[in-house]
Amino acid sequence: MNLKALREEVLEANLEIVRRGLVLYTFGNASGFDRERGLCVIKPSGVPYDAMMPDQLVVTDLNGKIVEGALRPSSDLPTHLALYRGFPTIGGIIHTHSRFATAWAQAGRDIPCLGTTHADYIRGPIPVTDPMPVEEIQSDYELNTGAAIVRRFANLNPIETPAILVAGHAPFCWGTTPADAAHTAVIVEEIAHMAYLTVSINAHAEPLPDHLRDKHFLRKHGSAAYYGQRKD
Amino acid sequence: MNLKALREEVLEANLEIVRRGLVLYTFGNASGFDRERGLCVIKPSGVPYDAMMPDQLVVTDLNGKIVEGALRPSSDLPTHLALYRGFPTIGGIIHTHSRFATAWAQAGRDIPCLGTTHADYIRGPIPVTDPMPVEEIQSDYELNTGAAIVRRFANLNPIETPAILVAGHAPFCWGTTPADAAHTAVIVEEIAHMAYLTVSINAHAEPLPDHLRDKHFLRKHGSAAYYGQRKD
Amino acid sequence: MNLKALREEVLEANLEIVRRGLVLYTFGNASGFDRERGLCVIKPSGVPYDAMMPDQLVVTDLNGKIVEGALRPSSDLPTHLALYRGFPTIGGIIHTHSRFATAWAQAGRDIPCLGTTHADYIRGPIPVTDPMPVEEIQSDYELNTGAAIVRRFANLNPIETPAILVAGHAPFCWGTTPADAAHTAVIVEEIAHMAYLTVSINAHAEPLPDHLRDKHFLRKHGSAAYYGQRKD
Amino acid sequence: MNLKALREEVLEANLEIVRRGLVLYTFGNASGFDRERGLCVIKPSGVPYDAMMPDQLVVTDLNGKIVEGALRPSSDLPTHLALYRGFPTIGGIIHTHSRFATAWAQAGRDIPCLGTTHADYIRGPIPVTDPMPVEEIQSDYELNTGAAIVRRFANLNPIETPAILVAGHAPFCWGTTPADAAHTAVIVEEIAHMAYLTVSINAHAEPLPDHLRDKHFLRKHGSAAYYGQRKD
Repeated sequence: MNLKALREEVLEANLEIVRRGLVLYTFGNASGFDRERGLCVIKPSGVPYDAMMPDQLVVTDLNGKIVEGALRPSSDLPTHLALYRGFPTIGGIIHTHSRFATAWAQAGRDIPCLGTTHADYIRGPIPVTDPMPVEEIQSDYELNTGAAIVRRFANLNPIETPAILVAGHAPFCWGTTPADAAHTAVIVEEIAHMAYLTVSINAHAEPLPDHLRDKHFLRKHGSAAYYGQRKD
Repeated sequence: MNLKALREEVLEANLEIVRRGLVLYTFGNASGFDRERGLCVIKPSGVPYDAMMPDQLVVTDLNGKIVEGALRPSSDLPTHLALYRGFPTIGGIIHTHSRFATAWAQAGRDIPCLGTTHADYIRGPIPVTDPMPVEEIQSDYELNTGAAIVRRFANLNPIETPAILVAGHAPFCWGTTPADAAHTAVIVEEIAHMAYLTVSINAHAEPLPDHLRDKHFLRKHGSAAYYGQRKD
Repeated sequence: MNLKALREEVLEANLEIVRRGLVLYTFGNASGFDRERGLCVIKPSGVPYDAMMPDQLVVTDLNGKIVEGALRPSSDLPTHLALYRGFPTIGGIIHTHSRFATAWAQAGRDIPCLGTTHADYIRGPIPVTDPMPVEEIQSDYELNTGAAIVRRFANLNPIETPAILVAGHAPFCWGTTPADAAHTAVIVEEIAHMAYLTVSINAHAEPLPDHLRDKHFLRKHGSAAYYGQRKD
Repeated sequence: MNLKALREEVLEANLEIVRRGLVLYTFGNASGFDRERGLCVIKPSGVPYDAMMPDQLVVTDLNGKIVEGALRPSSDLPTHLALYRGFPTIGGIIHTHSRFATAWAQAGRDIPCLGTTHADYIRGPIPVTDPMPVEEIQSDYELNTGAAIVRRFANLNPIETPAILVAGHAPFCWGTTPADAAHTAVIVEEIAHMAYLTVSINAHAEPLPDHLRDKHFLRKHGSAAYYGQRKD
């Protein structure tokens, strides 16, 4: 993949979250990462989506040094880069303030795996980060946000759990590509909405048992998957 | 009815649930059953709705053997076939993950008949299945999902109760035709939404008394119906 | 006003409630009443809105005898006529199953006047009817529904309270014209939505004090009104 | 800025709140203030938005005397003028009955700063006014509504807290320009929605700690802001 293709894929991921209603004004940002060249393509900061062109996206290296682009990158760039460093298997990241996922983040609660819609995509709860210490907020805040996410994944597999809620803030979602990350962001908002309704109906609703959760997750992921059309 | 007509009717039912907002991405599936020939027409697995053509639908016999079609059928095919075998009066089935009905399924609660909108279509609560034993999940899961639904209907009439919630999963709805099943799926989502709001306003809201429920159900169904235009 | 004009106004009121999202499929109905001639124009039963023509509307006298029209009138006609007989100042009625107002009806709760949006249109709570006795449901149900509404208004002014919730069923709204009734139906749904949210945030939210409620109601209604442009 | 430009900006702010779904029928109103000339441009009362022309807007002085315009100004004009007098740094005001913000106003609750979406725009809770005494409601009601807002800001900075909820009524939002006020009105509704969901998930959700709130507010506002593109 050359950078032109990645720029277009990142732009498309930015537009997908707009089309799906996850974005108000200039909220949110998408990025993609080219592992071979070690380069990140990310949305510029505070630019309206509807007129955004591929060449307005900003290219940086893994330390945030701008390689191409005349605009400032998203202020959340250091968070994205921390995730690309911490999760070597991912190639795209989406950050939104989508309404229901953000509400769970504000409530400081993991989204439990309450149904098969969730289990089809995520193998376990969507975790929430621990609150960040005051020093981590006052300096290098965006970098430390990424560090707080990576810390929370000490015992989690970022491919099986492709999303997190930053406490008091909002979700970050990821995938092997920017398109995959955008798809996950849409699904996470739907799961967050359904989970909201579920706990409103029954405050004591139980998570799926592990065998039902894994049945659904593995029906769609891994070597024994049998959902969809054969890719061979 | 020849299979061309049934293919078109099944495609149209698939598209109706998309138009009515019951579907995200490739979620959900519709099927139709030709009782005379013993053949089922069903949506292919994981194919986007917007480009779906009638000849992409898959035709199988009542045991799931593919009779026509180059694509894999929906992975939920065995559930559909179990319902066609178990409920001899039905000719169309819709499975969705529509948001409010799914929330009740995740909450593990029957949707009580709280008002006349519900009673106009369904004579009693929309039931939820019992949790499936681990063995039934680990092998022949989709077939056993159908069996769990049929078991739950031991004392229910599938024409008077044309929908069920699979616990922790989502609704299945049916009818005499695919169009009828799609109509029911839309109504079930509306009923689920209203019931959600109702129990939020008044956690102790009572179901309709039987005489009011039956007045509404029988105003629209059966030999004494007087809603709509005469069909003779 | 001749009947042609009233037919068009009733059709327009039917279409307005569709445009405003108060209607699913063929739910709901609008009527208008010509006091001079004693004639009611009402939607036919179970006919889709999108192809409805003025001459499909049904004209009846105050006893429900069909004067013009080839189709069956709405099955709720006897309820409408009971209201035109009981409330001599009204000229249009709308019945919907709009989602939030219906939820309050199903919850069996009056909608309290919790804010000025409500007070701008309705001087006090939106009342809910008492449950109907079994005999009134089993015979002449629609007529008795009208009687239950009129009974509930023994001490209420139908111009100051232009809407009611039929317990376990849904709202009826009215006004001096069909357009006025349709406007009220839209406002009632908005008020029901806001009241739902309000009691969810604060289960003990208090109704407006009478002086604030009346300030808003009388700012828009009656001889001292000063909202809008002068009509003279 | 001449008045023609201000008329167009006020009209555009009125239309923006319609486009964003904050307005039903003729609810709401926007105004702008020309500090140099001491003139206010405001929406006329009860006029539909879809046909509104710049020259239908009404121009008044700071005491409400009409300087230009054939129509009556919004009945809320005295509230707007009280705010322009009380908050010398503002140049645009929006009043809406947007659904979620209104629900909080009806619930009589400040909207706590539960997340960074809120903190990005508002430095602290969105306050609710104290109930107005009966005398202030019965005479000069709209003027006294403005006075109640200004009183509530005795210890608040209207640039850092650009919105208020009038108890039992609805929000007023403001900014340096009408466009800025409209932007804030949209954000306030989103914040109110997210806060509603948050307290439904967790009734004991805590406001952000001050250092996290200020980090976000000051990332976007003031001399050390680093969000968006450089304006120099």
